[in-house]
Amino acid sequence: MKKLGLGVVGVGEMGRRHAENIRRLVPEARLVAVADAVADRARQVAEDLEIENSFHSLDEMLARTEINAVVIATPDKFHAKAIASAAATGKDILCEKPLATNRSDAQAALSAVARAGVRLQIGFMRRFDPAYVAAMKRIEEGEIGEPVLFKSLGRDKDVPPIEAYQSNVNGMLFYNNTIHDFDLARWLMHDEVTEVQAYTTVSIRPQVAMYGDVVASSVNLKFSRGAIGNVESNVQAIYGYDVRSEIVGSKGTIFVGSVETVPTTFLSAAGSNHILADHFLTRFADAYLAEVRDFVHNILHDRPPRVSGDDGMKALEIAIAAEESHFEGGAPRKVRAEEVERLGATTGEV
Amino acid sequence: MKKLGLGVVGVGEMGRRHAENIRRLVPEARLVAVADAVADRARQVAEDLEIENSFHSLDEMLARTEINAVVIATPDKFHAKAIASAAATGKDILCEKPLATNRSDAQAALSAVARAGVRLQIGFMRRFDPAYVAAMKRIEEGEIGEPVLFKSLGRDKDVPPIEAYQSNVNGMLFYNNTIHDFDLARWLMHDEVTEVQAYTTVSIRPQVAMYGDVVASSVNLKFSRGAIGNVESNVQAIYGYDVRSEIVGSKGTIFVGSVETVPTTFLSAAGSNHILADHFLTRFADAYLAEVRDFVHNILHDRPPRVSGDDGMKALEIAIAAEESHFEGGAPRKVRAEEVERLGATTGEV
Amino acid sequence: MKKLGLGVVGVGEMGRRHAENIRRLVPEARLVAVADAVADRARQVAEDLEIENSFHSLDEMLARTEINAVVIATPDKFHAKAIASAAATGKDILCEKPLATNRSDAQAALSAVARAGVRLQIGFMRRFDPAYVAAMKRIEEGEIGEPVLFKSLGRDKDVPPIEAYQSNVNGMLFYNNTIHDFDLARWLMHDEVTEVQAYTTVSIRPQVAMYGDVVASSVNLKFSRGAIGNVESNVQAIYGYDVRSEIVGSKGTIFVGSVETVPTTFLSAAGSNHILADHFLTRFADAYLAEVRDFVHNILHDRPPRVSGDDGMKALEIAIAAEESHFEGGAPRKVRAEEVERLGATTGEV
Amino acid sequence: MKKLGLGVVGVGEMGRRHAENIRRLVPEARLVAVADAVADRARQVAEDLEIENSFHSLDEMLARTEINAVVIATPDKFHAKAIASAAATGKDILCEKPLATNRSDAQAALSAVARAGVRLQIGFMRRFDPAYVAAMKRIEEGEIGEPVLFKSLGRDKDVPPIEAYQSNVNGMLFYNNTIHDFDLARWLMHDEVTEVQAYTTVSIRPQVAMYGDVVASSVNLKFSRGAIGNVESNVQAIYGYDVRSEIVGSKGTIFVGSVETVPTTFLSAAGSNHILADHFLTRFADAYLAEVRDFVHNILHDRPPRVSGDDGMKALEIAIAAEESHFEGGAPRKVRAEEVERLGATTGEV
Repeated sequence: MKKLGLGVVGVGEMGRRHAENIRRLVPEARLVAVADAVADRARQVAEDLEIENSFHSLDEMLARTEINAVVIATPDKFHAKAIASAAATGKDILCEKPLATNRSDAQAALSAVARAGVRLQIGFMRRFDPAYVAAMKRIEEGEIGEPVLFKSLGRDKDVPPIEAYQSNVNGMLFYNNTIHDFDLARWLMHDEVTEVQAYTTVSIRPQVAMYGDVVASSVNLKFSRGAIGNVESNVQAIYGYDVRSEIVGSKGTIFVGSVETVPTTFLSAAGSNHILADHFLTRFADAYLAEVRDFVHNILHDRPPRVSGDDGMKALEIAIAAEESHFEGGAPRKVRAEEVERLGATTGEV
Repeated sequence: MKKLGLGVVGVGEMGRRHAENIRRLVPEARLVAVADAVADRARQVAEDLEIENSFHSLDEMLARTEINAVVIATPDKFHAKAIASAAATGKDILCEKPLATNRSDAQAALSAVARAGVRLQIGFMRRFDPAYVAAMKRIEEGEIGEPVLFKSLGRDKDVPPIEAYQSNVNGMLFYNNTIHDFDLARWLMHDEVTEVQAYTTVSIRPQVAMYGDVVASSVNLKFSRGAIGNVESNVQAIYGYDVRSEIVGSKGTIFVGSVETVPTTFLSAAGSNHILADHFLTRFADAYLAEVRDFVHNILHDRPPRVSGDDGMKALEIAIAAEESHFEGGAPRKVRAEEVERLGATTGEV
Repeated sequence: MKKLGLGVVGVGEMGRRHAENIRRLVPEARLVAVADAVADRARQVAEDLEIENSFHSLDEMLARTEINAVVIATPDKFHAKAIASAAATGKDILCEKPLATNRSDAQAALSAVARAGVRLQIGFMRRFDPAYVAAMKRIEEGEIGEPVLFKSLGRDKDVPPIEAYQSNVNGMLFYNNTIHDFDLARWLMHDEVTEVQAYTTVSIRPQVAMYGDVVASSVNLKFSRGAIGNVESNVQAIYGYDVRSEIVGSKGTIFVGSVETVPTTFLSAAGSNHILADHFLTRFADAYLAEVRDFVHNILHDRPPRVSGDDGMKALEIAIAAEESHFEGGAPRKVRAEEVERLGATTGEV
Repeated sequence: MKKLGLGVVGVGEMGRRHAENIRRLVPEARLVAVADAVADRARQVAEDLEIENSFHSLDEMLARTEINAVVIATPDKFHAKAIASAAATGKDILCEKPLATNRSDAQAALSAVARAGVRLQIGFMRRFDPAYVAAMKRIEEGEIGEPVLFKSLGRDKDVPPIEAYQSNVNGMLFYNNTIHDFDLARWLMHDEVTEVQAYTTVSIRPQVAMYGDVVASSVNLKFSRGAIGNVESNVQAIYGYDVRSEIVGSKGTIFVGSVETVPTTFLSAAGSNHILADHFLTRFADAYLAEVRDFVHNILHDRPPRVSGDDGMKALEIAIAAEESHFEGGAPRKVRAEEVERLGATTGEV
């Protein structure tokens, strides 16, 4: 079988991982090139991965005809434009979350994709994590009955450097972090979020408010069929990288998550001690690999992507509503649903 | 030392446990009598516990001078009046939560207590649970730094009989269940809740709405110093009795709770299996005993109770605000703080 | 119903707990008296428990006719003689493990019991622990198929004071600690141990060898139907009190035990931390209570005890064989089985 | 840097994994060829991994000069001869455990290695597992004080097909399974095993005795500095693949292992349920990769291998002593130590 040619744009921590996975662990794909606005970074990754081509612009890379599809891992605010450019050259696209950092960019990106007739997959990799997949399987088998409550939390370990806020290239908390949980909410509940309430805090780091961001949040959710939920995010939990989700149903409950990594227990007079997870690339290593494999396989077998642009749009709408609620002191905000109906038919289903 | 004479009014499941604890496991106390509107029930408990006196009204019991203090474990809506009656006869009081099911009843009860100069302790027994006590100790030692997020959940196992709703003698979810978490929020955070948002659901049992109640809820919290939180309640989780709380701080996090009871693991080709907790009297057996012991000891040593009437009032105000938010579709509601200032000076501190 | 009169002899830590349980938590029993070779100790316990009678000898206590049964909690080497004395006065007996510290003492005690026709229960309280009971239930339901391996370990927390060895009133490790696991081996496997191999160590505290004792041991077991096993003991594990057992079967495995006590998890950059169990009276509090309740109920209902003198003898024979193997450098030693056949018919079965 | 050329001989389940790891995840190495006595299997693996060369004999592969080193993953009984052949052609060697299935084969292999002056690493991959590495780090930092007890167990999930016994190409239980634990015993305790006692069982599958093998075993260990230990093995535990080890010290204890894989908890009225590990290639995926990377890096940096031929010999001597004890009904057997002194100086240390 002819291999699928891929390029990766944006080879920071995340994009580099995608490039490594494609280069080494997706036999049906060939990593043709990497691109990065920082030319040296692209060059170094190309050298490390022993591939020939590195570029310092996406457009240069898109000109290469042996590239069939691209992975976009640039900062958040450049996603939408990168999608449009890639679509215009007829490449299939796997774009990191979020689809965009505002509604008009997102719509423009989706329109470009629709016009070009290319595939677009959004990087909600948790849908490929073995623990979430196991949970989903049991939910679909009816084990927990009718879902009543959706709970999820995501906590990052280290205090982000203030420069990360100043650069202003990523979306605020809801777009950059919580959006994973917004997507899980829709996916695991087989339902749509219709309304949100958001409380946020900057109490332990007031200066992040200057950049329109928050340290932590608690967002209540209402679902279309009557269930409710809550999603917590925290960018500086200090103790570790911690992602947990819970789906409470009428007959049972499923809980996903464990902050302990290696199964080593240290017992002393001070009590027991375990080592904790500290990074998303460790916790979700398997998920990122399964994600890109699935992307490649679906293209090669001419199937739609498992996580669609519409999924990206809907999660984005929840984030937008959460941010509005945050600006309005927590008032309930409807999630805009127009897109839901218009694009619904193309939603990829697992 | 002369023993403290105690009476228990309301000897259903909860009151009977209090009576047993006092009779058998509090050497400094003497269980003088039990009372219950169902005379046979009072008689049976008296017989089982081998005590002489049972009454079918609180007033009869209060007439006994060898009773120094009473434990009130009647249905919720009778708490306030029972407090007033007991106070009028000069008895110290340990009253089950909630203090009352509305603000005016609560204020009347507190006024009666203030006039009589008796002690009033509210039955927030989780403050005496070894797991929560261990958590509080580490928080007070500064181990988690400044608290940022408070999370808590309480789930009951079995579907309540519809009669429990029809009888209308207990408060709705926020007054009867969530109030424990509202108290934990204040206690563990060393802070006051100033605002709430509440989403609720009856999706899996719509008929409870007819009785002004809900099946499950997710309440967001704002604290006076900037922290935020969320409390979930669910009266029919089916899988077990599950209470968990989490305090996320600037330096660390403490998690309390485990739904697994006996440390027995069953391993088969179907995976591992553990037995789950199913009842609050099992999970909090130690807490209820420690609570009543502390109540007795503080009276005998002329110390204020560890959980004051003011604590009962403040938790009630949070429940009232949550119910208001629920009625208004989740709009943020301020927690009424008047009582906080007026009665603050008498708040028991651990 | 007339209450069963009980006396407790030996009110150190263990006997005092038995006395408290009987006094407070066994409504069908009446604690008539306590006795202890240290008269002041007996007096203090009687005062604390608010009972009238304390004695400084067993014989004085046995003279009281209102005592129907006695609990023996003296040091190990006095068990057998106390059993014989109690039997001679027609009292039923609950004796702490071991039955005796040598075979002839044990046989004399059992003969006295047989002659007198009284009941004798040996204090293998783990058989009453909820976790072990849950395990046993599943084994009897056939969940694990045919047992293949029995594993068990028991570790005490603190280094025993050297005086504990010098006093020479308790049996060495196999008689005082491991005997619990020897009993579990027989009970959980529904089988008899026929041969043992024992390795022991004093490497971290050589002086205990002077007193004929060891710090830790690993004893391999052979069962009559072909299964094998291993039991580890360690008297100074430092980190906590840890008891675990595992029964591996042809279809599944059951694991009992957890060293973590309160369900509180502390999460910091140093990892997660739990509080550990530190004492057998905490870990097995429920078991000790269930044990003495069962003892009392069986007498009142004229049923045989659940753990018989024969059970005590068989566990003792395993300990004797283990000690012989230890003396012979680990050579396999048959477990003497004569008693098994002769007394087998009277073995109490759960 | 020039890449290290590697060949893999024996590409069944284990060898195929080694080949995949080298092909894809060890950038400093180049997988030149695979060989297998089943020519089709070698061809298929070569095709799957997109390499040019496959052979149906080791000797053919060894003739390729661009191969610098080989990985041996044939059945156990062919290990020694393969080592000798590879050594004779000057290739460095990573050989799966055991070094050999008898002493003379092992000695011949080690002599060939010594004569040729090549590197030999034995595939005790657990030394590279993150959980064991974390344990070792704490032990070396003195956290548990002086080791007193070593416990380890290894259980395979599925009943081995009877053909696996009939083929007679692998060593019996001690050589094929327990040898991992024998190596861990030496490594984690920083000590040598001097004597063993072995009990074995075939009770649930008597026919394996016809092939000189057993279903499960419990082997007691004595160490040179006074510590003791026990190792259990079981080839058909049914519930899952379970490897656990525990090192009890004078100041603390370290426990390694968890049979639960994905962090997903299913909660229902039947209790909680987790998914269990079922295969060594899943549990030790990271370890196998780290092992071969370390092998390659040490060759490229001209360092000795981390797990030496001497380590292989010493673990083998423990297995030999355990088998002798098994044949003699469990009599204690000294571990032959001659090799210890003679080859001690070349032992690789971590």
